[in-house]
Amino acid sequence: MGRIVLPRHATPFHLTLALDPRDGRQASQLAAALVRAIAEGQLHDGDPLPSTRSLARHLGLARSAVVAAYEELSAAGFLVATAGSATRVGPGARSASLAGAYTHPTEAEPQSAGAEGTAHPIRLDLRPGHPDPGLIDDRDWARAWRRAAAAPLQPPADAVTALRPGFGHSFHEPLRRALAEHLRRNRAVVCDAADVFLFPGVNAALRALVGLVGEPDRAIAFEEPGYSTGRRALESSGARVRPIPVDAEGLRVDDLGDEWGCYVTPAHQYPLGSRMSVARRAALLDWATAHDALILEDDYDGEFRYDVAPMPSLHSMNAGAERVIYLGTASKMLARELRVAWVVLPRRLREPMQDFLARTGDSVNPVAAAALAEFVDSGALVRQLARAQRGYAARRSRFTEACRDLLPGLVLQGIEAGLHVVLRLPAGIDDRALRDRLLVDGLACQALSDYWLGDPGAGESKSGGLVCGYARLPETRAREAAALIAAALARIQAEPGAPPA
Amino acid sequence: MGRIVLPRHATPFHLTLALDPRDGRQASQLAAALVRAIAEGQLHDGDPLPSTRSLARHLGLARSAVVAAYEELSAAGFLVATAGSATRVGPGARSASLAGAYTHPTEAEPQSAGAEGTAHPIRLDLRPGHPDPGLIDDRDWARAWRRAAAAPLQPPADAVTALRPGFGHSFHEPLRRALAEHLRRNRAVVCDAADVFLFPGVNAALRALVGLVGEPDRAIAFEEPGYSTGRRALESSGARVRPIPVDAEGLRVDDLGDEWGCYVTPAHQYPLGSRMSVARRAALLDWATAHDALILEDDYDGEFRYDVAPMPSLHSMNAGAERVIYLGTASKMLARELRVAWVVLPRRLREPMQDFLARTGDSVNPVAAAALAEFVDSGALVRQLARAQRGYAARRSRFTEACRDLLPGLVLQGIEAGLHVVLRLPAGIDDRALRDRLLVDGLACQALSDYWLGDPGAGESKSGGLVCGYARLPETRAREAAALIAAALARIQAEPGAPPA
Repeated sequence: MGRIVLPRHATPFHLTLALDPRDGRQASQLAAALVRAIAEGQLHDGDPLPSTRSLARHLGLARSAVVAAYEELSAAGFLVATAGSATRVGPGARSASLAGAYTHPTEAEPQSAGAEGTAHPIRLDLRPGHPDPGLIDDRDWARAWRRAAAAPLQPPADAVTALRPGFGHSFHEPLRRALAEHLRRNRAVVCDAADVFLFPGVNAALRALVGLVGEPDRAIAFEEPGYSTGRRALESSGARVRPIPVDAEGLRVDDLGDEWGCYVTPAHQYPLGSRMSVARRAALLDWATAHDALILEDDYDGEFRYDVAPMPSLHSMNAGAERVIYLGTASKMLARELRVAWVVLPRRLREPMQDFLARTGDSVNPVAAAALAEFVDSGALVRQLARAQRGYAARRSRFTEACRDLLPGLVLQGIEAGLHVVLRLPAGIDDRALRDRLLVDGLACQALSDYWLGDPGAGESKSGGLVCGYARLPETRAREAAALIAAALARIQAEPGAPPA
Repeated sequence: MGRIVLPRHATPFHLTLALDPRDGRQASQLAAALVRAIAEGQLHDGDPLPSTRSLARHLGLARSAVVAAYEELSAAGFLVATAGSATRVGPGARSASLAGAYTHPTEAEPQSAGAEGTAHPIRLDLRPGHPDPGLIDDRDWARAWRRAAAAPLQPPADAVTALRPGFGHSFHEPLRRALAEHLRRNRAVVCDAADVFLFPGVNAALRALVGLVGEPDRAIAFEEPGYSTGRRALESSGARVRPIPVDAEGLRVDDLGDEWGCYVTPAHQYPLGSRMSVARRAALLDWATAHDALILEDDYDGEFRYDVAPMPSLHSMNAGAERVIYLGTASKMLARELRVAWVVLPRRLREPMQDFLARTGDSVNPVAAAALAEFVDSGALVRQLARAQRGYAARRSRFTEACRDLLPGLVLQGIEAGLHVVLRLPAGIDDRALRDRLLVDGLACQALSDYWLGDPGAGESKSGGLVCGYARLPETRAREAAALIAAALARIQAEPGAPPA
C-alpha cells in the first residue's frame, strides 16, 4: 500500500491518500482511499477536493479513473458535485463512512465458462422451433419498428381502472384488432378484438391460463410426447399434468378422463408432426363438451403446410368457440424477437381474463406490439408468410429427399406441415447418444426421447428419433446434414454391443 | 333467407346459395352458405367455384366479401386456392362439413364499455408512477429503436444449453454490460454484467425472486404502507407477506423478525416518500446478516432527488453486495414502454438464477433491450436523466408551493426525492372519498389508504392522504390542481357529520 502525499486544492495542508491495489482497478482504489480519508477525518464535510486533473497528475493515474471515482462517490452520497465549482465532501459523509456505508468494490471475475466451455461450433443447426430470420424483409422489419417508435408514447391507462394501485394493464387495441382480422382470414378463427389477449410468449399465456381457468382438483391432459417447455410452464403454475399418448391421428381422445383441460397441437403435433384427423378433432370437442373441459389449441406453426389441404382449426369447428382456447405466436411466423403471443378466449372468459391480467400486470412490450400491428396491417406479414412458406417447402423437400437417399431404412414423420421432421431411429439406438455425437460433429438437433414425460419405451412409439428443424438448413447443405447423421448412426451401430443394423 | 340461383363457372348446371343474414356480415353469410352447399352435396370435392368477380356480381355482394369468404374457407380447409386456376372444393370438405367442422361466425358485439364507461375526462393527471414521456428526446428515442431494429436478428442460443428442450433463454449481454456500467457510475452499485438479470418488469422480477430464493416456511417483510402491486406479485407467487410499519426514517427494523427477506424502497419510500436514514440502513443490513436474510432494495426512482445529497444505496454499503438484491427499472427513468427492469444479485445467486431463468423461459423483448442498451451506451440516458431531473424539480417546486399556499394546514411528505408527494389529510377525512370526488372534477390521484395491507388507522400514520405524482403536471397548472383539491376538501368538511376542519 503506497502512501502518496499531495497538496490540497487551494489549501495549505496536505492530503494523504493510500491507494491499495487490492481495491481493484484504479478508480476503485482511489474511491476506497477517499472514503478512508473521510473516515479518518482528513477530509471533512464540505471540504473541496482537488480537481480531477490535478489529482490524476499527482497520483499518476488516468484522469478518467479519477472522474470515475468521483462519480461513484457522488452517486453514493460521499461527494457532492456542483456545476462550476469544486467537488466537495457531502454532508454526513463522515458518519456514513464510519457506519460502513461503502464496500470497496472487487474486480470483476472473468466470466465463468460454464456449460458454454464445452460447446462445439455448430455448422448445421437443425434445432427445431427457430424460424429463419433471414427470410424477413429487412425493410419491412425496420419500417415496422421505426413506425412503432415514432408513435406517441402511450398515455397511462384510463383513470378508473388505475384508481386501485396495480390496475392499468395495457391491452394494445391496434394489435388485438389486427390479429383478430388476420386470424379470421388466415386461420378461420373468428373472434372479436376483445377476445384476443396478448402475452410475451406462449409459456406466459399457459401460466396465465392455469391461473384463470385451471382447477386444482383436476389434471390437465397433455400430449405424450409433447412440447416439454409448455408442459413445464403449466407445472410451474401448479397444474397437475397427465400425459396422454399420441398416435398417427393425434392425441388419443379415448384415453382422456375427467381433466379440466387438454393441451394439443393439432396442426402439427409437437414433436411428432402428425396432423390431427377431422374425426379426432370432432371427438376431442365432444369430450370437452361432455366433461365441461377446455381445449388449449396451440397453433404454433399452423401457417406452414406442404402439398396438403389445410384442416380446420378446432376453434372453427362446432362448439369450438365455446370450448377452445386458441394460442398462437409471432415466434414461428415471423421472429422470436417480437416476443408476442396471443390467446383467443371463449367470450365468457373475456372479462375474467381482463381482471386477471390487470391484477398480474404482465403484458407485451407495447413498441413490439405496435411493430407487429404495423406488420399485419401493412400486409407485410402475409407477404412474409408466403415467402417463408416457399422457402421452407424447398428446404423440407431437399432435406427429406436427402434423408431418403442416405438413410433409406428410416421413417420420416411429420413432413406434411410445420418446420421440423422426426427421423425415427432403428430400435435400440439411444437417440440422446446419437444427438450428442452429432453435436461433436457440428450438427445440432434434438432427441425425441426428451419430449416424453414418462418412459418413451413404454409407449406405442418405442424407438427413439431425431427431431430436425429444417427452417434454417440451406438446400445446398441438406445432403451434408443427412450424410453426417448417416455416418454417426453407422458408427454407433458398428460398436460392440450395438443392436443389429 | 333469400335463395339465389346462379350459373356455375364453366359448367351447365346451377348452384343454389342461401344467404342468411343471421350469419353476420356478407362474407360470413356467403361462407356459411357455401359450407351448407358442400354439406348438401351441391358442391363436391374438387369442384371449381365461380370466380370471385362473377360470384360477387351474381349475388350482388362486394367482391371483397367474396374474397374474404373464400379466404376464410381456404384457411379452414373447405376450399383450395391454386395460383392460376380456379378455387376448388378441398378434399374431404364434405365429410368435414357434415362433421360440423364449421361454426358460422357471429357478428362482433360492440365492445362492452366496462369500467371505462364511467370514466371522467382527466384534465389533471396526478397518478403516481408515470414519468412524463414528453421529456424524452424524440430523436434519441427513434434512433435507439432504429438501431435496435437494424441489428441482425438474434441467432438461437448456444447449442449446449439448448440441447435440453426449454433451455435457450436469452440474457442480452450488451444491455447487461451497459447497465452494470451505468449502475456503477450513477448509483454506486458495483457489479459484473453477469450479476445483472433482466426482466420485463419489476413485478416479474419479484415473482422470479420468490421462486429462486423464497422460503416457504418464513415470511417476507414488506413496507406498510407499501408498493401494493409488488406486494401482490410476491403473494401471487406463494410468498407470505408480513407488513412492517414505516416511520420517518424508513422501515422500522426493530419490528423485523425471522423473515427470509425484506422488501424496501430506501431512496424514496413508496408511497410515503421518506428516505431511509443511514443508521436505519446499517441496522437493516445487520438484521439481514444476523438472520441470513436478503434485502430486496427497489430503487424504482432513485435517480431523482432535489436539494439534498444522495444517500448510499444499500447495495453499496458494507455487506450489501452479499445481502442486497438491487432492483431497478427503465419505467421511471425513461418510459414504461421499454418494459425492462433489472436485478443485481449477490454473486452466489448468479448460477442459480441462470438456471432458473432458463427453465422458466421469461425474458425481456430483445429489441427493447437493444434499444435501451443503445440509449445507455450513446449517453442519451444520462442526458435524459439530467433533463428529467430539471423538469421534475421545477414541477415539484411549483406544486408543493401551490399546496402550501392553498392547503396551508396540510403536511406534505416525500418532497425530497422521487416523482410524487403525499398530501396528508386532516384526521377523519376519508381519502378514498376525496379521491373519488376529485376524479369527478377531472383530477386523478391516489388514496394513501390503498397502500396499506392492514388497517391504516392502526398504524402510526393514522390520517389518510392523497398520493400525487407531479411528473406530468405542467408548472402552469400546479395552482389549479391545488385549488381543486382545496375546494373538494372544503366541500367534504362542510358536510354534516364531517370532522371539524
